[in-house]
Amino acid sequence: MPKDEKVYVGVDLGATKILAAVYDSKLRPLATGKTKTPREAKASVVVEALAEAVRSVMAEAGSGRELGGVGVAVPGPLDRAKGIVRYTPNMGFDDYPLGDELAGLFGAPAYLDNDVQAGVFGELRAGALRGKKNAVGVFIGTGVGGGIVIGGEIYRGSTGSAGEVGHMIIQEGGASCGCGNYGCLEALASRTAIAKDAAAQAASGKAPALFAAAGADIRKYRSSALYDAIEAGDKGVRKAVDRAAWWLGIGLANLVHVLNPEAIVIGGGVASRFGAKFVDRVEASMKEHVMPGLAGTVEVLLSELGDLAVSTGAACVALEAKR
Amino acid sequence: MPKDEKVYVGVDLGATKILAAVYDSKLRPLATGKTKTPREAKASVVVEALAEAVRSVMAEAGSGRELGGVGVAVPGPLDRAKGIVRYTPNMGFDDYPLGDELAGLFGAPAYLDNDVQAGVFGELRAGALRGKKNAVGVFIGTGVGGGIVIGGEIYRGSTGSAGEVGHMIIQEGGASCGCGNYGCLEALASRTAIAKDAAAQAASGKAPALFAAAGADIRKYRSSALYDAIEAGDKGVRKAVDRAAWWLGIGLANLVHVLNPEAIVIGGGVASRFGAKFVDRVEASMKEHVMPGLAGTVEVLLSELGDLAVSTGAACVALEAKR
Repeated sequence: MPKDEKVYVGVDLGATKILAAVYDSKLRPLATGKTKTPREAKASVVVEALAEAVRSVMAEAGSGRELGGVGVAVPGPLDRAKGIVRYTPNMGFDDYPLGDELAGLFGAPAYLDNDVQAGVFGELRAGALRGKKNAVGVFIGTGVGGGIVIGGEIYRGSTGSAGEVGHMIIQEGGASCGCGNYGCLEALASRTAIAKDAAAQAASGKAPALFAAAGADIRKYRSSALYDAIEAGDKGVRKAVDRAAWWLGIGLANLVHVLNPEAIVIGGGVASRFGAKFVDRVEASMKEHVMPGLAGTVEVLLSELGDLAVSTGAACVALEAKR
Repeated sequence: MPKDEKVYVGVDLGATKILAAVYDSKLRPLATGKTKTPREAKASVVVEALAEAVRSVMAEAGSGRELGGVGVAVPGPLDRAKGIVRYTPNMGFDDYPLGDELAGLFGAPAYLDNDVQAGVFGELRAGALRGKKNAVGVFIGTGVGGGIVIGGEIYRGSTGSAGEVGHMIIQEGGASCGCGNYGCLEALASRTAIAKDAAAQAASGKAPALFAAAGADIRKYRSSALYDAIEAGDKGVRKAVDRAAWWLGIGLANLVHVLNPEAIVIGGGVASRFGAKFVDRVEASMKEHVMPGLAGTVEVLLSELGDLAVSTGAACVALEAKR
């Protein structure tokens, strides 16, 4: 890369961690860094940690790199055009002009994006959805989020909230969801749903390895703990994960009926940890639940960018805004 | 209208009726006509009836009207670009070049479209969705069909089948659907679902007016029979219709989460007959089932074109293709 080519920083600002990465103009990562999100829910403290993460990763990328722009992906509602974070749980932002503040700090344009939409955008420009026109991304973590691609661009809907696929009701009257409804995809197939299920299995002795490693505290049931327990032979945990994959397939079938996409990418912690086997199970369930004739119209793909999907998309927002 | 201005014919080719209408270039209907679809499931017989319906309605519209084009909306899969009907239940079409044949018969360009997508297109250009950018149409009849509007145009998906909203699963394990799955929106909220429910009510004496008028034959439970029974005091029928509206609201909530549309139009026989009250019930259920903050982002509207939605959309396909 010529020394004078610009670089772009993408930041995945999460409630528990801040991941910053520097990309060249082909979206190749030059340096990445991760730090914990400050526990103090105060905007100025979070912004300072964010700025430090950016400085540190820029230093790692090496001197002589001109910063072309910064993109920050945020959980929670925002005004993308004005660079304002409306509200975030646990970070103290409240109609906060984060875009302008970061632009001032770095002397470069700064942009905000929704975290899940940024993740799908990353996969679209530099990952599993490269070159796709009509597609969907579904990310499985604490919740289930999604993003929609129409005509090769992220479709945001009339007020910016398109792609809330985790709140499709797929079993009215089923498991209760944080949103207040029952039987949402998120309530049945998120890591939280798997953890709840696994905890019940652990409590009844069907997940001894998980219980030995993490007790009955579902906050400790991260994707890797669940994976390790299955590797150690916990049938109850295997069942909980398989069941989530089955429900996800029903959610995907709904998306196939509504959107007729050519591809669906599955990402997030659970998918990254459980990999292709998990995606295969999701795909099998999707095919079982679509109308005859539709099963062959769509590919189900594993995220290529993994942990870096969101930061890649955020950097790409800055990159494309410059054009 | 100047005598030399072109007119456009739209045909709603259904399994039970053929509705043809002549429109001016502002999509105002000049003449409409309806005939029964021939019982003989033979393509040549159906095409003859279709051609006769077009000739008859053109004659009614008056002499001196130059035909600018014909659009035909067909139930079942088709190749729009080539004007080929892949297959239709009960009409004998099997990879049939209907577009070319009609163009030859009328000496004017002829176009095919999917029936439900045409209905939504009609509402978009000349009905309740006029001027909307991102919207959805849901049509309730024997089944539940839909169409999606993105950026002011019909979004067809990667293989032309987007908008199959009737096969979203909203209650996994629920009522069986013709598609082979369980708990599809169509299995819970179509006129067929209402009729099944009403028949059970009639059989147990809770729908005496319906039973007196139509016996226990659910094929006779058309929208008007159901409406009349409710007017005559059949509580069982009222319950069946209200329940369908409630399920529809759940389906709409899923669409709001996925697509974040500014408006949803409800059409088809049931909606036309039951009108604004039915739509209000659907909207109330939708609002009950969306995440906080989304209820105010979307309008739920009753079809403005009613029976003419599909033919209007079909005519508009011909009109816009000419531009």
